[in-house]
Amino acid sequence: MQDLMLIFHNYSGEDGDKATLSKKEMKKLIEKELPTFLAAQKDPKFVDSLMKDLDQNRDDKINFEEFLSLICGLSMACEECFRRSEKKGKK
Amino acid sequence: MQDLMLIFHNYSGEDGDKATLSKKEMKKLIEKELPTFLAAQKDPKFVDSLMKDLDQNRDDKINFEEFLSLICGLSMACEECFRRSEKKGKK
Repeated sequence: MQDLMLIFHNYSGEDGDKATLSKKEMKKLIEKELPTFLAAQKDPKFVDSLMKDLDQNRDDKINFEEFLSLICGLSMACEECFRRSEKKGKK
Repeated sequence: MQDLMLIFHNYSGEDGDKATLSKKEMKKLIEKELPTFLAAQKDPKFVDSLMKDLDQNRDDKINFEEFLSLICGLSMACEECFRRSEKKGKK
């Protein structure tokens, strides 16, 4: 949990507003912290679409709660993959 | 994210069902991984109430998605505390 906060705040403070990630900050965070995830995306406008999906209050910024929904979504996808690969391994 | 999965699976497999945490496994996880959080609770039936809150599909077990909602809730509470302490620091 501390790591999640540290990562968020490592990027969120660049534009002076520590409470949210701007599109630029979000892009940097994904590029640095989730390079494999980014590389797997084919859509060149991926970060824009992701921002739009996450930005629930439509203020063009990602707050910590919205950031957590990305982390939870990704974690669930990872867990799903992990369980599928375990099932295959057992066959 | 990998850490979250590892922690979950470290405890979830003890009763043979790797996909969910039983009440016993959940208690152990909280005792070992979140001792400060547990120590701050005054209610002796805290783990029972927490299980009830988290167990959205009412099967008396905590799946990974339900576990993530605990982590997200705690992370948001931590972030809130962090921002409050920062504001106080600035005064």
